[in-house]
Amino acid sequence: MVLDLPTPCVIVDGDVLERNLRTMAEAAAGRGIALRPHAKTHKCVQIARRQIELGAAGLTVATVSEAEIFADAGFDDLFLAYPIWPSPQRAARLRALASRVRLLVGIDSAESAQALARAVPGLEVLVEVDSGHHRSGVAPGAAGGLADAADKAGLTVRGVFTFPGHAYGPDRQKRAADEEAAALTEAAAGLAPGLRSGGSTPTAALTSADVLTEMRPGVYVFGDAQQLELGTCSWDDIALTVLSTVVSRSGNRFILDAGSKILGADRQAWATGFGRLVDHPDARIVALSEHHATVALPDGVPVPRLGDVLRVVPNHVCTTVNLADELVVTSAGTEVDRWPVAARNANT
Amino acid sequence: MVLDLPTPCVIVDGDVLERNLRTMAEAAAGRGIALRPHAKTHKCVQIARRQIELGAAGLTVATVSEAEIFADAGFDDLFLAYPIWPSPQRAARLRALASRVRLLVGIDSAESAQALARAVPGLEVLVEVDSGHHRSGVAPGAAGGLADAADKAGLTVRGVFTFPGHAYGPDRQKRAADEEAAALTEAAAGLAPGLRSGGSTPTAALTSADVLTEMRPGVYVFGDAQQLELGTCSWDDIALTVLSTVVSRSGNRFILDAGSKILGADRQAWATGFGRLVDHPDARIVALSEHHATVALPDGVPVPRLGDVLRVVPNHVCTTVNLADELVVTSAGTEVDRWPVAARNANT
Repeated sequence: MVLDLPTPCVIVDGDVLERNLRTMAEAAAGRGIALRPHAKTHKCVQIARRQIELGAAGLTVATVSEAEIFADAGFDDLFLAYPIWPSPQRAARLRALASRVRLLVGIDSAESAQALARAVPGLEVLVEVDSGHHRSGVAPGAAGGLADAADKAGLTVRGVFTFPGHAYGPDRQKRAADEEAAALTEAAAGLAPGLRSGGSTPTAALTSADVLTEMRPGVYVFGDAQQLELGTCSWDDIALTVLSTVVSRSGNRFILDAGSKILGADRQAWATGFGRLVDHPDARIVALSEHHATVALPDGVPVPRLGDVLRVVPNHVCTTVNLADELVVTSAGTEVDRWPVAARNANT
Repeated sequence: MVLDLPTPCVIVDGDVLERNLRTMAEAAAGRGIALRPHAKTHKCVQIARRQIELGAAGLTVATVSEAEIFADAGFDDLFLAYPIWPSPQRAARLRALASRVRLLVGIDSAESAQALARAVPGLEVLVEVDSGHHRSGVAPGAAGGLADAADKAGLTVRGVFTFPGHAYGPDRQKRAADEEAAALTEAAAGLAPGLRSGGSTPTAALTSADVLTEMRPGVYVFGDAQQLELGTCSWDDIALTVLSTVVSRSGNRFILDAGSKILGADRQAWATGFGRLVDHPDARIVALSEHHATVALPDGVPVPRLGDVLRVVPNHVCTTVNLADELVVTSAGTEVDRWPVAARNANT
């Protein structure tokens, strides 16, 4: 690594990124499933362009402001996979978006369908189904009724979607993928034939090609410590790390200057810590403050020196990217580009 | 509340903020302890100015870039309470800072003291002591030896400091404050008389006025759900909330559009959830995704309507502020100002 950057700093290995993009694009194409990657992971126009060049059908976004930013950058087919509530202000923004790009929006209640229909008559929507994550979405058996209500209200129903978020846990991927397929099958039976859209990086390889017409993984572009610990990516797939400096040491522990304000504080109950270290796979981040990662090494392993620069793999890369203004892109350890995080803080 | 803002959105009640600033300033003055508030909480020039107007001795900052931003804004007495490692790049920035403001820097090893002395000869430093948080800092009994090494290396030792971070837990504040006082007393005994600087919002009221010459609380300006649940602030002290919209509901649960990308994902083991709701004190945020807060209400409590706008109290306000570009300042429910988060993402 020949980088001399102020730490902490988010860096992306452009070669690993490119391989990750190609691998997922080829896998989806090979199985006949359209790929509509979730842009909330990278929030980055340069990466989204490459996804489209490699065959993606369009982008998935999480918020109206993400949709606006990617529409401004020329992307013309956007799925807002979120149960949007069209307050007057947001309704005007949705109308403006729908007039300039192909916009799909999620619905999970008759009330929101009616409000969206008043806001944007004829808007294209997908009915959100709960396949086991129990966050938003209707029960699969209720999808047909909601589609009817949406149609009656004046929306254009294009199909059903789900997010199998319950795949985020040890050994849960197969079951979540099966439940995703079952939920989409049951839900779609109540509608005219259309889109059947599902997740997700942990389930991507297990997704049913018989059921899904489209999938929306996000994290695969970079990988992260959660995917490593779920076994759904390998160390070689890690494209994004946070460069950080050893600032303190004591016994078999040391402190890095990358804390929650750059890594994010996400920690699932099954995670072994607050992130992993490329250069010390046996190390664990046992505590995280805003500007301190406390790293523990197994007894007998030499502790790095003060001033050493190490690469941290964040637990959940989507939140790390959202904390950075730009991504420093490298190839063979040399900086080759800087990409703005165009949709940073695009929460509204 | 007569605000019509896109949600989620960080708002600050300017009247509560002013009361919090005054209360802490008066309490510190009344006890004869200098107040050097930690600016990492608000990262905001307007709030820092008010702290100085109300008598603060200077500011505490966490990073060199925070120091640079507040120095640029005219603050001339800054304590960088962090075990800085002066890489060549950072050394040049420290020299530039020390040439234009009064700069104090933390040290916790002879090696970093020697490196700092080479980088900025004569730099004023405080020796960091571990009072029980076990993050950085030397044992109290080692402070004198480190001070001697720093002095010999060419630094100007001004005293000792600690952060009693182990006060963040139920019923731990008294013990942490006692340990803070004991650690600073023992450490200071090995040095020439000087500063004895301690935390922190949870311990502020319990801090020993006999021992501490200075304290560095941060969170008190806004309060947050952690302080509420520790009992170290009340609902009336909450100055910062995140406006958010109900977008989905099912049974006794509903979904708000404020997720980890605006609230932050901090959740201590003893916290009852991922934040609290001003308008529903009995509610708990039982799950948090990037753009979804899943809120559970007790059985029988009416669930808010779709489109309702509610105020979320984040668990850890420092990370919430760092996720916002600006703070919308209100008085009596009306927007009165917008303050940039000047030191957002100032991690280096």
